[in-house]
Amino acid sequence: MAQRIFINEVAPRDGLQIEARFVPTPDKIALIDALSRTGVAKIEATSFTSPKAIPNLADAGDVMAGITRHEDVDYVALVPNERGAERALAAGVDELNLVLSASDSHGLANLRMTPWQSLARFEHMIALARGSNVSINASISTTFGCPFEGDVPASRILEIVRALAALGVDGITLCDTTGMANPQQVSALCKDVIKRHPELLLTLHVHDTRGMGLANALAAWQAGIIRFDAALGGLGGCPFAPGASGNVCSEDLVHMFETMGLDTGVDLDALLAVAETLPALVGHEVPGQVVKAGRSSRRYPLPAHVARG
Amino acid sequence: MAQRIFINEVAPRDGLQIEARFVPTPDKIALIDALSRTGVAKIEATSFTSPKAIPNLADAGDVMAGITRHEDVDYVALVPNERGAERALAAGVDELNLVLSASDSHGLANLRMTPWQSLARFEHMIALARGSNVSINASISTTFGCPFEGDVPASRILEIVRALAALGVDGITLCDTTGMANPQQVSALCKDVIKRHPELLLTLHVHDTRGMGLANALAAWQAGIIRFDAALGGLGGCPFAPGASGNVCSEDLVHMFETMGLDTGVDLDALLAVAETLPALVGHEVPGQVVKAGRSSRRYPLPAHVARG
Repeated sequence: MAQRIFINEVAPRDGLQIEARFVPTPDKIALIDALSRTGVAKIEATSFTSPKAIPNLADAGDVMAGITRHEDVDYVALVPNERGAERALAAGVDELNLVLSASDSHGLANLRMTPWQSLARFEHMIALARGSNVSINASISTTFGCPFEGDVPASRILEIVRALAALGVDGITLCDTTGMANPQQVSALCKDVIKRHPELLLTLHVHDTRGMGLANALAAWQAGIIRFDAALGGLGGCPFAPGASGNVCSEDLVHMFETMGLDTGVDLDALLAVAETLPALVGHEVPGQVVKAGRSSRRYPLPAHVARG
Repeated sequence: MAQRIFINEVAPRDGLQIEARFVPTPDKIALIDALSRTGVAKIEATSFTSPKAIPNLADAGDVMAGITRHEDVDYVALVPNERGAERALAAGVDELNLVLSASDSHGLANLRMTPWQSLARFEHMIALARGSNVSINASISTTFGCPFEGDVPASRILEIVRALAALGVDGITLCDTTGMANPQQVSALCKDVIKRHPELLLTLHVHDTRGMGLANALAAWQAGIIRFDAALGGLGGCPFAPGASGNVCSEDLVHMFETMGLDTGVDLDALLAVAETLPALVGHEVPGQVVKAGRSSRRYPLPAHVARG
């Protein structure tokens, strides 16, 4: 039997949040519903955050209320604080995704908290979910490097992972927030975290900012990672790198793993069909390659001079 | 000491040959001269082919006569037949790159020869170079799949490699001509060829058609490959897949390997500076990512609210 890979589709949250235009709520719901029928394991549907901080996701509650839940899909919401956690729990999400930054400066820039301040808040947020069936994931931004500070020592990541495990999270996502990771680094850190915390569900979140998204995903899989965040069309990205690619592209990631003989659970044709709707939805071309080139199994007709024999 | 990687820059040939517009000969010479100063090991400068078949490279002789040779760079020309080999030898190339297709239909479409017919011609072409210091490489197109036939059995590749080795070629390039390869396949075939032919200088040539260019290069390096074809800016590509990426991008490949701690011999800043001139040269944007995003070591200023403390 082929080894199973689990895809967490983050385009509705990580992709849409930085788009120049607000995607209307019914279109978001239609996108999530279409993704729900592709076989992805999870969908990060929205973020319960301040509408002032992220106006594009101001409709989080309406989105969660409007989607048609698929029994095989876990619906995740990113929550930056207690208020967000309360709203997400009230909306009936399957998973809360807490977020902190590994580097002080990125934490202060993005969340106005150092990692240690974030960890202190997490205790209260996790307490809110206690007794429910909602699982808790924590995403560690700038795990593989910080755009302000540069290198983040692996020892710091391991310290944060240890603290999160002690708080009782179910899973942790190692995030290459601005596409700074390289395959060597991904391999070494993933192996180390897996060895120390075999009890955690580990996910890799990579961006394609320097073109290494699939190479880093490959390196992580070789190290034992089987859960991946990815964004349809390669939406998302880093506000610091205009013109650069965004998150690793879901359909390109699924295509790579499927051609390698792995089982992503995803119906790639269905996913590609949803990906084809993206440019109209967001108003611009998107980076995904397979939707333009077709699967590698695609065949072309022989040129006439050869076909004639 | 860091492990050495050798880059063969193919943009002047594989990149420019399919561009919509003819790049003027002085611009080609300036491009090759600029690339010569970046530390790449080889440059595939042109192809000595019929001007009717590839009008963009009709100036092969003038290009070779016009460039300023760098002593550390080997200048390669692709040659499709005896006439091309004679012209390339007269022009003083350092290496002849012979080309054949692994699949019958691609060979007939592209060269009007099956692989076995190509091999018969190679004997004469190699005889022409005998006694000179010119080395002989053979590129095997459609090694990882044929856009007309689909899968190409590994046994056929191994048979062709064996035949080429018997003819006395110095090196062989395994070419993923239309970007059909996946990392699993690249890994398996590269390991197999290296094991059977440790005497050959093996090169991997991949395209980024389905976004897997760097992942395939990573897999090949893990299998023991240290020589790579790549095209500045990710130029080149497949006429069958409009909108898709072209060859794996030189500066993105160098960036990946350098961040992994390997030594490509390339001055990445110099290579990026040449890459920045490409859009003006070819008249359109190119796929390379690092030139847009900057190296992963790039730092950004702290937002004001954080910098104020």
